Amino acid sequence: MSQVEALPGREVEIAELTRHRVLVSWAAQAGLKHTVIDHAEGSYLYTPDGRRILDFSSGLICVNVGHNHPKVVEAIRRQAGRVTYVTPNFATDVRAQLADALSRVSPRGALVKTLFTSGGAEANENAIKIARLYTGRHKVLASYRSYHGATLGAMTLSGDQRRLAVEPGISGVVHFFTPYPYRSPFGVPPEQETEAALKHLEDVLLYEGPENVAAIFLEPVIGSGGLIVPPDGYLRGVREVCTRHGILMVLDEVMTGFGRTGRWFAAEHWDVVPDMITFAKGVTSGYVPLGGVMMSQPIARYFDEHVFWGGLTYSGHPLACAAGLANLEVYEEQGLVERAARMEVAMREKLGRLAERHPVVGDVRGKGMFWGIELVADRKTREPWVPWNTKGPGRMKELLGQLAARDVYVYGRWNLLYVAPPLTASEAELDEGVSGIDSALAAVA
Amino acid sequence: MSQVEALPGREVEIAELTRHRVLVSWAAQAGLKHTVIDHAEGSYLYTPDGRRILDFSSGLICVNVGHNHPKVVEAIRRQAGRVTYVTPNFATDVRAQLADALSRVSPRGALVKTLFTSGGAEANENAIKIARLYTGRHKVLASYRSYHGATLGAMTLSGDQRRLAVEPGISGVVHFFTPYPYRSPFGVPPEQETEAALKHLEDVLLYEGPENVAAIFLEPVIGSGGLIVPPDGYLRGVREVCTRHGILMVLDEVMTGFGRTGRWFAAEHWDVVPDMITFAKGVTSGYVPLGGVMMSQPIARYFDEHVFWGGLTYSGHPLACAAGLANLEVYEEQGLVERAARMEVAMREKLGRLAERHPVVGDVRGKGMFWGIELVADRKTREPWVPWNTKGPGRMKELLGQLAARDVYVYGRWNLLYVAPPLTASEAELDEGVSGIDSALAAVA
Repeated sequence: MSQVEALPGREVEIAELTRHRVLVSWAAQAGLKHTVIDHAEGSYLYTPDGRRILDFSSGLICVNVGHNHPKVVEAIRRQAGRVTYVTPNFATDVRAQLADALSRVSPRGALVKTLFTSGGAEANENAIKIARLYTGRHKVLASYRSYHGATLGAMTLSGDQRRLAVEPGISGVVHFFTPYPYRSPFGVPPEQETEAALKHLEDVLLYEGPENVAAIFLEPVIGSGGLIVPPDGYLRGVREVCTRHGILMVLDEVMTGFGRTGRWFAAEHWDVVPDMITFAKGVTSGYVPLGGVMMSQPIARYFDEHVFWGGLTYSGHPLACAAGLANLEVYEEQGLVERAARMEVAMREKLGRLAERHPVVGDVRGKGMFWGIELVADRKTREPWVPWNTKGPGRMKELLGQLAARDVYVYGRWNLLYVAPPLTASEAELDEGVSGIDSALAAVA
Repeated sequence: MSQVEALPGREVEIAELTRHRVLVSWAAQAGLKHTVIDHAEGSYLYTPDGRRILDFSSGLICVNVGHNHPKVVEAIRRQAGRVTYVTPNFATDVRAQLADALSRVSPRGALVKTLFTSGGAEANENAIKIARLYTGRHKVLASYRSYHGATLGAMTLSGDQRRLAVEPGISGVVHFFTPYPYRSPFGVPPEQETEAALKHLEDVLLYEGPENVAAIFLEPVIGSGGLIVPPDGYLRGVREVCTRHGILMVLDEVMTGFGRTGRWFAAEHWDVVPDMITFAKGVTSGYVPLGGVMMSQPIARYFDEHVFWGGLTYSGHPLACAAGLANLEVYEEQGLVERAARMEVAMREKLGRLAERHPVVGDVRGKGMFWGIELVADRKTREPWVPWNTKGPGRMKELLGQLAARDVYVYGRWNLLYVAPPLTASEAELDEGVSGIDSALAAVA
């Protein structure tokens, strides 16, 4: 149970102060409405006036263990009274134990060492550096529709429209197309998508010179760029291409890691072992900012004798590592990774029913408890409900408003809704969220 | 009092696990020794075996209120039971109140809005974006010897040798020289340093085209690049140059902010109001990762109607903001900013005595409780004890080892020791630290 009472009457004051004093991400500020959250519990957020909002996207797909989990709260409280911060040059039990646990849950236990950061962007920034230092090569390949963070290195990697307003970024980044079975960028039917995508990657490498390429960055399941699950064979194919050319395979599992897709890391669905995994979000369920890069033994060994030219004040932050360690214990003790895998059936079935009832639902896809609903203006032509990087007719804003009016929070962009409840969410909570989407879709139809 | 007992016998196990599982910043890993910290209190770190180490650099110059401050610990514990994370699109009381408090303590109260990040690098990354979006100009000027963080945008800004191994970074960054009275890059006597430095800046702008320059980034007192205090008149001169050319003045107060130099922000020593201040470290004393960008009213207003193309999952993180708010209350309730100003006399006097006793001490300089000891091979020629970006004869490593053997931790690079105790440190603790340096200098003489 939450240990605080809501404080009615503070909403206006806090919203007003926010409007005057806080710059909010990815927005022109004038139109923003500030719903105030007082406290949170499990799958719900509570306003000061006691309104209860279902968090159907786990924040920004990070609060995997649910809000206010007693074990994580207790770990934070305990560590807060021991030591919250030391420089990365000192060692702490929580950092060592978390790094050890991460190594254990990494794909085939093959990623043996971790560099800790404060979030996913910094993780990818460091992975770029590690790849360049280790290989001595400059170029990095990344996917259109991927998102890797907002710092200028990570943003340059991103095949997201948020890159466009702040270009140019760093040099040496080349974007390529990855599979999107629902809208093949290669113009082939779904069963040929893997082959076409791997051929395309080989073509890009041919012209870029594979001997100049340090790394290929991928989200194993593309997150905020459309929740795109690759067809079987693709990631294994990329692994083979990377190995053949001495290119490092870096999987950005910032969204997909820590049980979200029903495995510890999404790479495991296809039994792929990348050379590095970058992570954040689920490692602490967002309770304390933390991210990092896990790396293979050969990369780790390289930096025994070569300086690693990266770092940050908060690397291996003790309070963050304590929260991470408690999260990993929660995942294991409550079997949340396995639960997410089991819930895939229910998610598919419940969201599938939306497709039956609403012609605007073009595609429903996902893994574990990480699902996307792609909306279309026309099911036959698959014309997007709101085209990529346009405001369209304000439709998505209206839909999110209808959801908010039903006390359901869902993350959405253009024509995609991202359904990613806490891995602890009950079937009843799933039904509540799906019912909210059902009703909101009807309202905007 | 610390609420935990040390756990003897765990040092070897934790150090070993760290060696196998953790990649540590800015180092080749083979030679690292891992001193394990179990808990911390005030100015001291404690090992599992009960060894007490004086933290004479406040970690990496961030633990301004000292370790394990009861008020901050309590605020973290309280917030941990309310809500640790919501997306930046929701509002919380702690984010609103911290942003309001920051505005109040900003120079002349003129920086009215804050974007929150998880650290200093991300703060500078966002300041670059804000400056470019607001001015429509591309170039950014920054100072040799500055340090602004390790992500590729912030690293490109840095005039630090840590940039060199990971170049090229972003385009459009131009470095210039700032005052260094002890070693004038302009070859002039100290009383002409300001004038020469401003002339140099104007020259660089002339050739770069001031109409192409979005911002000039400066650390008001250069931190890890040598603890260099600018002569009076310099920052005011830069302010005037910026205003005249429509260039934004961005002060990186990640190290100098929150009382470290005896003012809330170092800019106040010279009554300068920059267009943006980037901060981190002292805002939470490192208890929870947090950073941000404070901006002027015109910049804030610009983003009312224009999209701000930046953000991150953890922007305005509630647990971090709660820690920040508690820190600001501690600074005010305990008068720590004023205390740091008063302690400047004691710091100068105590460190000055080291100069009397050790010919290797070339210069002692600082503000408030932020001090540098520059070591020289020869006082007359001022030849550095260890030249910039060289290992030298391993001297600094030996000196830091001698300090560690005396249970005193001091941050040092090449020929600089950075003395920056918690703002709460007692005179006895200062004496203990200075005595450790005294004895360690004697040992390496």
